[in-house]
Order: sequence, then structure tokens, then C-alpha cells
Amino acid sequence: MPTKRIARRVTLASRPVGLPSVNNFKIESFSVNSPQAEEVLVKVTHFSLDPYMRGRMDDAASYAAPVKLGEVMEAGAVGRVEESESEGIEVGDWVYGRMGWTESAVIDGSLIQKIPASMSPKSLSLGALGMPGFTGWWGLSHHGRPKAGETLVVGAVTGPVGSMVVQLAKRLGLKTIGIAGSEKKCTLAIDKFGVDHCLNHREFNSARELQSALKGVAPDGIDIYFENVGGKVFEAVAPQMNEFGRVVVCGMVSWYNEGAMGTEAQTESISVANLWRNILVKKLSVNGFIISDHWSHYPKFVSNMQPLITSGEIQYIEDMVAGIENAPNAFIGLLQGRNFGKLVVEV
Amino acid sequence: MPTKRIARRVTLASRPVGLPSVNNFKIESFSVNSPQAEEVLVKVTHFSLDPYMRGRMDDAASYAAPVKLGEVMEAGAVGRVEESESEGIEVGDWVYGRMGWTESAVIDGSLIQKIPASMSPKSLSLGALGMPGFTGWWGLSHHGRPKAGETLVVGAVTGPVGSMVVQLAKRLGLKTIGIAGSEKKCTLAIDKFGVDHCLNHREFNSARELQSALKGVAPDGIDIYFENVGGKVFEAVAPQMNEFGRVVVCGMVSWYNEGAMGTEAQTESISVANLWRNILVKKLSVNGFIISDHWSHYPKFVSNMQPLITSGEIQYIEDMVAGIENAPNAFIGLLQGRNFGKLVVEV
Repeated sequence: MPTKRIARRVTLASRPVGLPSVNNFKIESFSVNSPQAEEVLVKVTHFSLDPYMRGRMDDAASYAAPVKLGEVMEAGAVGRVEESESEGIEVGDWVYGRMGWTESAVIDGSLIQKIPASMSPKSLSLGALGMPGFTGWWGLSHHGRPKAGETLVVGAVTGPVGSMVVQLAKRLGLKTIGIAGSEKKCTLAIDKFGVDHCLNHREFNSARELQSALKGVAPDGIDIYFENVGGKVFEAVAPQMNEFGRVVVCGMVSWYNEGAMGTEAQTESISVANLWRNILVKKLSVNGFIISDHWSHYPKFVSNMQPLITSGEIQYIEDMVAGIENAPNAFIGLLQGRNFGKLVVEV
Repeated sequence: MPTKRIARRVTLASRPVGLPSVNNFKIESFSVNSPQAEEVLVKVTHFSLDPYMRGRMDDAASYAAPVKLGEVMEAGAVGRVEESESEGIEVGDWVYGRMGWTESAVIDGSLIQKIPASMSPKSLSLGALGMPGFTGWWGLSHHGRPKAGETLVVGAVTGPVGSMVVQLAKRLGLKTIGIAGSEKKCTLAIDKFGVDHCLNHREFNSARELQSALKGVAPDGIDIYFENVGGKVFEAVAPQMNEFGRVVVCGMVSWYNEGAMGTEAQTESISVANLWRNILVKKLSVNGFIISDHWSHYPKFVSNMQPLITSGEIQYIEDMVAGIENAPNAFIGLLQGRNFGKLVVEV
């Protein structure tokens, strides 16, 4: 039997109103149990911080049930198996699972996935080769139906979803326009991810101003909008969609902090009737999706993308935060757009 | 050479604000020209009145260019060829084309379609076997992706689109819920078209009230919403869509009268952010379409549906108005929901 051990985790202390503060989180020590039948004990090396977690902090149905008060915050995490009571999983295996903001986890073996030994660094399984990269790949190919010569717009372009989307679109011959929250991010989007144009949305005081700027760089209109931000970007893009355009909806971070995931957020320049009319008149296809419904396609994604990432043909950025105790602040920064690239906590 | 002839037509006299009045239309006589090369002269027997025509009266881009002041109002029409300079079209042929609110039209032979001699009455080519029926058939099968046991909601259920949709859905084993604008229409929807439930939206003062009533008849949620009305019905349905639900957007008559096709219409219970969040969280698929983009599928539609209509397995209602001079009033009534079934003017 293993020695009894203590580890740390972050739990939800109270529900935020609007932007969370550090007081909504509690860093606590807990004693790690031994795995029971079918379970494994994983020493977590990295966990992911993502905008969708804001939704889990509200007491409202989102993609999934909310985190309960006192429970560990949810997150995708990667780590090494230390003990295993699960057939087919060996001590030393690297695995991915929804283990949460924690240094150590006991989890059912059926709920984890092995990470190819060839994946290096293993934290890639949280970003470019994990849920965010997979989201970009699946959303673009399945719902975006990209065609060479078309114009694509994506928000949060330096993030792990956006950067995958623009790089894949670029390889397929599309014109790519990224939106980001600073000049520095725009420079990165152009230099590292190769977007044709990047607009810093903070330079524009209103959706209408951003819309004018978009017209300048996308004079032929927009064929694909990869929606992962909502808010002002959404408002600026919606009226400029071309006929038969595709809107791929995988997130809306800018609305997550307002009320219960945007239910009270107001748009300044577009009404529901206006949006609906746009969908009809432009014959748009708008598809929401959550990548966890599509895990069966994950192996194909990894086998397609891993070589391109290894060779450097697809670039990525990891924004690494050291120490679980810094996770709450890093997450708050993420919601404010302070991170660069995929935000990962190194435990 | 034919004798010079005089016929009547209805032109756009002025642009309406909100609901049109008879003063927006002018009934005028004109002298009918002889067809030139490639053209035919058609004696119109029936033309169609449809909600989308309201959009054409505004000076704003809609599906198509607006009708210019002084021009004949647009409409799909059916009639008999009286003279032909177009190869393959004979005097006596019955044809469908966008000839407008008119008693007589000269039109290029490439712009008309022959109507099967077996179609009886020929006015069916304007309704159940024309654009509206085709809209219902295509939208349901292509975008709705219906599955037995699912629940479908459609507004304007006694109209030519809605009645086709519910009857097809019923045949496929779906639970069907219609919305209509009077008790009488609801009775008709149940007795003639076989819907499982019908709600009279005028009985409810708000979208929230209608939503509660919908919950009562669709306790398992809504899988397919066939959107042809917008407004209160849209607001009541949107929050009740099931995961992976499909919203098929082919019209929004309730918003056509407000400003330029709904651009100023306000929703009472739903915001853009709220709607967008719903699309994401419920993973909805929302598709706008205009049937004229899909004419290549029309022959298949007619060959599938004509036998079912002839046999009475698919029912339809024609609301026939006699005389072109009564078209403006009938059209205004249509926008107010006063008609029953497909509104056709018999010339």
C-alpha cells in the first residue's frame, strides 16, 4: 500500500457575479486516497485553464452541470499514472482526463485517455493537440466547410482555438482575418500564425467602428465566422456575412462575465429580429457545437495534426503558469484577455 | 399579328411604413405587347400572394432587389400561353413564372416552367405543388433532418408552407405542434392537417405565456422549429429547443411590417446574447434558406408529392380571391393573418 499523501486542489468557494475574484476560489489540502477497483491514481503535471470554466461557476445549466460549492474546479488535466487498478493502464503511462484544478486525482480508468508516448511536450494534450486544437479542427472542417479563396474571420486569434483555425484555413487557401485584444497579439497573429490581417478590437469604441475596419480588410465580405468571442466582434461580423456563409459557434468568452453567461448582455447595434433576418436573407448556416460530443474523431485529429505540429508547420503558444496556487489569478486574467496562447498551469 | 389588347396590373405606388395600405398600390391598365424573339405572351389565370412580398416593397436589400416605384408588384403566377416566339413552348401550354400582379405578361421563355398537364387545378402550382409546398418539403427534409418520435413546431400552420411541413412530419412519425392566429385556424389544423396540438397565439399576451403553453403540449422539448413567422412564436420556442435541435428559417412574417423587414422590431424576452448562448449550449443548427436557390430539386418534389395530393393523403387549402382589383386588400389581410390557406388571386 502506498504511503498516505497530501496534495493541494482548488475548489469553488462562492459563485461570482460578473468577473470572478480570487475570493471565489479556495486552495485547500486534501489527503489522496488509493485507487479502488477500475481506478487509477494520477499525479497531475499540468491542467488547462479555459474560458468555458466561467460558465461552470454559475448555478445555471450550461453545456454541463455547474460545479457545486466546495467541489474542485473542473479542468482537463494531464499527468502520470502512479498506481493503477485499471486493466490496460500501467504505472508510468501518461494520461489525459477531466481531473480538475488539482495536484493529484483518483479517477476511473474508463474516463481517461492515454497520450501517445511520442507527444512532446505532454502539455500539448491540453492545447494544440487537445480540446482547443480539436475544437478548431472539427469546427472548421465539419461546420465551416472552407473553400479556397473564401474569407474567414476568427476572434481571439492567438488563443489555442483561433490559432489552429487560422492556420488550417490558411493552408486551405482562405484569406484569414484575426481579431485580438492588443497590438502585441496582432503582431503575433501575423508573424507566428500567418494571418493576412489582424484587428485589435480595443482600438474600436463600438461595434460599428470595428465593422468599418473589417470592411476595409474584407471588402468581399465574410464567408466563415468562427465564433469564439461574441460581443463586439460578433456584432461587427454579423452584418457582413456573405450569402451562404457559415457561422461556427464554439464559444463567446466576451459574454461569459455578464450575468449568467451572457443572459443580460446587451448588443448595441443588432437586434434579435435583425440577426434572424440576416440568417434568412443571407441563407446562413449557424451551428453551435461542443467538442466533447465528438471525441470519436479525436484519434483522426491527432494523427493528422501531430506531424504538422512536430514539423513546425502548425505553430502554437503555451502560456505556462507555475504552481497551483497561481491558478485563480491566471484564470481571471484569461477572462480579461491577459494571457498569450494556451493557458496551462504547471503543477 | 394579334389585335392590340389592354390588360390590368397592380404597381407599387408608394413605399409603406409598417402595414401597407391600399394607397401603396395602383391598379392600372396597360397595353399588352406582342412577344419578341424568345418571348411568350401569357394570359395569367392566377397569381400568388405571399408574405415575402412585403419585403419587396421596402427600399432595402432583402432576398432580392426591391420593386421600384411604378413597377408591377412581383408574384409567382400561372397562366396559358397565348402566343409564343420561344422554341419548345406552344400556344395552349400551361406555365408558371414570376409574372407579377397582372392579367397578362410577356416573358422570356427561359424564365418560365411548364406545368404538368396532369396538375389539377393548375393553381396548385402556386401553393401545395408550388413554391410554398416546395419550401416546406425542402426545408424539412434538407435542414430539419426529421426523426420519428421527435417534436416539431411550426407557425402559421394553416398556411401553405406550414400545412405541408406538419403533414410530412406527421407521416414520418413526429409529434407535430402548430401555431395559428385564431381558434378557427387551430380547429382546421387539427381536423384537416392532423396536427397533434395547435395553439392560438392570440390567446397569449406575451412570449412567456405562449412559452408556458408550449411546455404543456411539448413537455419533452422541441427538436425542430420550422421558422416562418418570427416574433412571439420565435421567442416562445427558442428557449425550449432540445440539444442538437434544428431551426429551419424560411420566413418571419410577423416582423415584416416593422421598419425595414424587422430591423427595428424588438423582442421582449430574449436578447441576442441569450439567443447566441442557446445556439452554443444546445448545439443548435440554424439554417436560413430561400427556395429559389434550389429549383433543381423541384421536379423530384412534384413527382413525390403530386400523387399524395391527388389521393388526398396530403391536404391543402386554397383561399381564392376573385379579380385583380381585390389583390391589394387581400394582401393586407394576409399580413394580418386574415386568410385561410394559400392565398391566390383568380384573374
